[in-house]
Order: sequence, then C-alpha cells, then structure tokens
Amino acid sequence: MTHRIAVIPGDGIGKEVMPEGVRALQAAAERFGIALELAPFDFASCDYYAEHGQMLPDDWFEILKEFDAIFYGAVGWPETVPDHVSLWGSLLQFRRRFDQYINLRPCRLLPGIKSPLANRQPGDIDFYVVRENTEGEYSSVGGRMFEGTEREVVIQETVMTRHGTDRVLKFAYELAQSRPRRKLTSATKSNGIAITMPWWDERVAEMGRHYPEVAVDQFHIDILTANFVMHPDWFDVVVASNLFGDILSDLGPACTGTIGVAPSANINPEGTFPSLFEPVHGSAPDIAGRGIANPIGQIWSAAMMLEHLGHQEVSVAIVAAFEAVLAEGDEGVLTPDIGGRGTTEILGRAIAERI
Amino acid sequence: MTHRIAVIPGDGIGKEVMPEGVRALQAAAERFGIALELAPFDFASCDYYAEHGQMLPDDWFEILKEFDAIFYGAVGWPETVPDHVSLWGSLLQFRRRFDQYINLRPCRLLPGIKSPLANRQPGDIDFYVVRENTEGEYSSVGGRMFEGTEREVVIQETVMTRHGTDRVLKFAYELAQSRPRRKLTSATKSNGIAITMPWWDERVAEMGRHYPEVAVDQFHIDILTANFVMHPDWFDVVVASNLFGDILSDLGPACTGTIGVAPSANINPEGTFPSLFEPVHGSAPDIAGRGIANPIGQIWSAAMMLEHLGHQEVSVAIVAAFEAVLAEGDEGVLTPDIGGRGTTEILGRAIAERI
Ligand SMILES: CC(C)[C@H](C(=O)O)[C@@H](O)C(=O)O
Ligand SMILES: CC(C)[C@H](C(=O)O)[C@@H](O)C(=O)O
Repeated sequence: MTHRIAVIPGDGIGKEVMPEGVRALQAAAERFGIALELAPFDFASCDYYAEHGQMLPDDWFEILKEFDAIFYGAVGWPETVPDHVSLWGSLLQFRRRFDQYINLRPCRLLPGIKSPLANRQPGDIDFYVVRENTEGEYSSVGGRMFEGTEREVVIQETVMTRHGTDRVLKFAYELAQSRPRRKLTSATKSNGIAITMPWWDERVAEMGRHYPEVAVDQFHIDILTANFVMHPDWFDVVVASNLFGDILSDLGPACTGTIGVAPSANINPEGTFPSLFEPVHGSAPDIAGRGIANPIGQIWSAAMMLEHLGHQEVSVAIVAAFEAVLAEGDEGVLTPDIGGRGTTEILGRAIAERI
Repeated sequence: MTHRIAVIPGDGIGKEVMPEGVRALQAAAERFGIALELAPFDFASCDYYAEHGQMLPDDWFEILKEFDAIFYGAVGWPETVPDHVSLWGSLLQFRRRFDQYINLRPCRLLPGIKSPLANRQPGDIDFYVVRENTEGEYSSVGGRMFEGTEREVVIQETVMTRHGTDRVLKFAYELAQSRPRRKLTSATKSNGIAITMPWWDERVAEMGRHYPEVAVDQFHIDILTANFVMHPDWFDVVVASNLFGDILSDLGPACTGTIGVAPSANINPEGTFPSLFEPVHGSAPDIAGRGIANPIGQIWSAAMMLEHLGHQEVSVAIVAAFEAVLAEGDEGVLTPDIGGRGTTEILGRAIAERI
C-alpha cells in the first residue's frame, strides 16, 4: 500500500525546513520499506497569492482530499499579504474543511537542548496540548460598524458548539487515560469570559464522568501560562479552546528551549479527510532566507504523520534519530536557536543519516 | 488635604495581605505626614454574598464614588460562589462603572528574588503591561442556544470600540515615550482572530503617527508569550487587549519569580471616578488561610495608589523599603513563594518598619 502525501512548503522558513522534512521521510521510507508517493504543491503560499490573487486554486478541496495526509511547512508573509488573508485563505481553511478538529502538540524537553527555565532536565517537561482546531475564538463572524468614524465598533463572535467541544474533550480524556499519570488539565477563563467559558467548564466536568480514572484540574489561562513557567512538571495532558491552545502550544515549547523543534498534528480522527502535519514555528520572516532554521519541528511532524498512517515504529525511529543527534551536541551540526553554528541542511542531513 | 480611601479586603488571601497593605500605607502616611482616611468595607467578597445573596449592596456606586481611591485585596471563592458570579458582581463592575480603562501592571525582576528563568538578573526584566480594562473579550453579550441538547451552541461577542481602544493606545504610547527606551510592543492575533485584531493593528499604527519617536513592534499573542520566556529583555511597554493583557500580566510576573509581588493599578485617568489598586495574584484558595501569602503585591499596589494620589516620593520610598528587605534575603522574613520561612505578617512588618 502506497501512502499518498501532499507536500506544501508554503512561505518563509517553511521552504527551508521542508526539504529536510522530506529527506527524513524518504530515509525512513527506505529503511523501513514503506511506499510513499510525495506530491509537491506550490499553492497555500504567499508566492502563489502574488501570482494568482488567491492563496489556493478553486479546486483545492478536490485535489487535496484524495491524499492520505498533508505535510505542510509554514504560511504567512506579512510584507506582501496580510496575515489574516494568507492564513484564512489556506491553513485555517484546511483545518475547517477537512474537519481536523484535533490539534495535537507534544511539548517535551529534549536531551541536549537548554531550557530557558532554570534547573529543568529532560523528563521534567513532557506533556501534550490538545487544542480544539475548528471553532471557538477563531470564528469569521462579526464585523465593523460606523467604520472609519469616532463611533466605530468592531465585533467578533466566539462560537462554541457541544458537538465541537465534546469531541475534543473526549480525545483529550482518552489520551490522558492512556498515559501513566492519567492527568488532564483544562484551560479556562470562566471568571472573566463569562458566557462561553463557564459552559466549557461544565462540558469538561460532564465528559469527566465517563473517565473516573483521570484526575482533572483546571486553571484560568492567565495563571496557567504562569504555571507553565513556574511548574511545567505539573502537566500531562492540557486541553484548551482554539485560542488558548494556540497560546499554550507556543509557550510550552518555548519553555523547552526553542519553538523550532515543536511539531503539530491537525487530525481528523475519523479519517474522512486527510490530516495535516506541520511544525509549530510558522514562517518566521525574521530568520527566513538565511538557511539557519531548525528543521526538527518539520521532521518531528513527519514522525507524527507516519504514526498517524499506522507506522508507530518508524515514528519512534525518527524521534530517536533526532534525539541522538541532539544528545551528541555537535555545535557544527546544531542550528543557532539551540546553540550551534550549523545550517538547516547540515542538521537535516545528520538526522536523515541517523535514520 | 485628606485622601479618602475605601479598603476592601475581599476573599481568600486578600484578607491576609490587606492588613499588611494597610500597615505599609499607615507607616508611609506617618513618616511623610500624609492625611489618610481609611474606610473598610466587607462587601465585594464571597462572605458578603453568602449573607446577602449578592456581591455588593444596591448603593455601592454612590458609596464608593465619593472616595479618592479604592484599595482592594482579591475576590473569588469558587467553592461557594462561581467565579463568574463573584467577579462580574464586583471587580469587573468597578472597572466598568468607574471607567477604569487602564490596567497598568509593572513587571520587574526584583533584587533577591530568583527568576525561574535561567541567568536573569535584576535589571534584565523591567517592563509595563498596559491592559485595556473595560471592553474587548470581557463582554457580557452572548448566550446559549439549544441549551442542554446535542445541538447546543454558545456564543460570546468580543466588542472593541475606537473610543475604548484609542484611549488605551494613547496611554501606552505616552508611557513608552516617557521611558528611556521608548519602545512599544503591541499584542495581537490578527492572523487568527481575523475581525477584531486586524482592526486593533490598524489603530496601533494610526495612533503611532502621533508618536514618531516611539519604536513600535507587534507580536501575535502565541509567540509573544514564548518571547516573554525567551527574551524578557526585549520589552519596555506592552499594550494589549483585555484578555491578552490579563494573560501577559500573569505570565510576566511569573517570569520574575512570583506573581505574589505583582501590583496593578486600575486607572480612570481623568479622575472622574476613583481608581482601584490591587495585587495581581487573586484570592489563591490553594494557600488561603495559612498566613503565608506574599504581601508585597498588596504593598506595591499601595505605592502605586499613593503615586496616583500625587505622592511620587512616598511611592518611591515604599518600593525602596520592600526592595531593601528583599535584598537582605533573610529567610526567616521572606514568604515561602520567594524561598523563605516567614509569614505574611512577618514580612509585612519588616517592610513597614523599613518605611
Ligand atoms: C479575577 C479575574 C476576573 C481578573 C481578570 O481576568 O481581569 C484577574 O485575573 C485580573 O487579572 O485582575
Ligand atoms: C498562523 C496561525 C493562524 C496559527 C494559529 O493561530 O492557529 C498558528 O499560530 C498555529 O498555531 O498553527
């Protein structure tokens, strides 16, 4: 059986880390005898927008839905296309239209990477953020009134549904139950965001009745971010709304030393549509073009993709490969964000060889 | 001239730190010959709610508006009153009805306090969060539809106005301009929250035209939280919407070692209504009743209050007093959150003596 994978580098450092993601994928496919068909696409990028006036071709849905997975780099180039145009015209469409309602983001302190937190060792930080990925604060409902005048009012609605909330909570409880600590933390803000979030808390409690073995706690998002810094060891599985999950899944990886290594899986658990795998870091205009972006986020995303496609052992091998390279700590190989002098390609090649 | 101050301890550790806040205030008043009239109130607490079925007396607005300032402890006791009921019934009313549209929160690494961040010294972290304090994501507009059924939908509106946004931006630009670095950072999320936040970005740019000397940058809230941890030295003045400011002003103090020391000023700059001064930490049910809460957040809030009332030099003296006690680092005096074995009262007395 051949896995058909759509490969979309996107913008900025997405174009730089994607070749290394592909290199790792191909190395793994070869070593483990997996048949992969990789189909590259130039759309869902601001370059494509410059040429076509839109981020995606009209038939993108038909094209992509035939694939088993989408392997994405990063999107966004605010110098030429406003972020909300590029993002709502690509990634956020994929998440919604392919109903990738789980955004799963591991957050783990890796060997050889220095945490900005004092005295934290590998093992101390090891949790997942499970983020709702299709609704909530990321709605497109609202607008401007009295535009351009002193009376201007701008409204945007947060929309949460029981359908959308319960399914992400279920996923998070299942994940927590499958892990040794069996601990779930809910991100809330029911003291201030007094309509949606108290309801979110109710749904968390209600779903918890089916998982008596999972210990649940909850923190308001403000103190939760503080606790990520002060007590990252408290967390096992953290479940959050779309916006809160977005925040926590950048902050968590920052606490592990760099967001350059963090991967994410945008999953449609039913398999009705392709799932999408991408690094957390984004297009990073500030370092783009210099060939120094850390490719591990992209490579770890490849590992998550292979796991999703049923190749657990291959996924483990890829993670072991970059962990080994990190543990060696060769400054000539590591990228600058993790204390080295290497390039994207040097680090990517070192990992591929290890696989 | 006598300053009339309403003193509201509230709930949990609010009741424990308030006596130390008052002690510091009185010590300062005595030393500098300031006439203070302190009027204690038991409302705006969950104890009051238990007795009266509401957080505030009906005539709270008339009572409090006669004061020159409100000195608040903390509110919230979720075991007996849901947070959204206690908060919307007290603090959030004060902020709105007294049009305290600026929430100003200094974030500074103090001598003698260990940052959870590796290798950060006093001086490395020193910025302000300027938070919009009356509108935005903290709206009370929205509701539940198809309640209690599988089709349940819950909606909450974020409402931003030009009036409300421009005035907080103006305050933030003025503050940035008055500081040596003249740097302003805007917290946005215009790539995902695609209606209100692109508009926020426009207002930031528009207001910036009046402050050509202020260097402005912006980060999406996700990577901004990451940068608080990775690069806290980048920031000077950070301006944010109500929710983002709430998050950043807990995370920032966490990066400085403890949220127990962080103060906040809820300011009505025109002086039409009393401004309100409170520590950032909240009622902290987990440590309440043990007498170990750090009183510095409350005491620093007293300093901000006296500054607001025109006593800049007294404010400086209070800050110098607790900085001196911290720098001494006597473990018998410091509270547990900053590595000591002292109590709220011991630390409070040590600071009052110093004043
Ligand atoms: C208690 C809560 C409603 C409040 C807020 O979110 O504003 C608090 O976190 C704060 O920062 O003052
Ligand atoms: C680019 C942006 C719209 C996106 C998000 O907010 O979801 C990104 O930050 C992410 O976390 O995948």
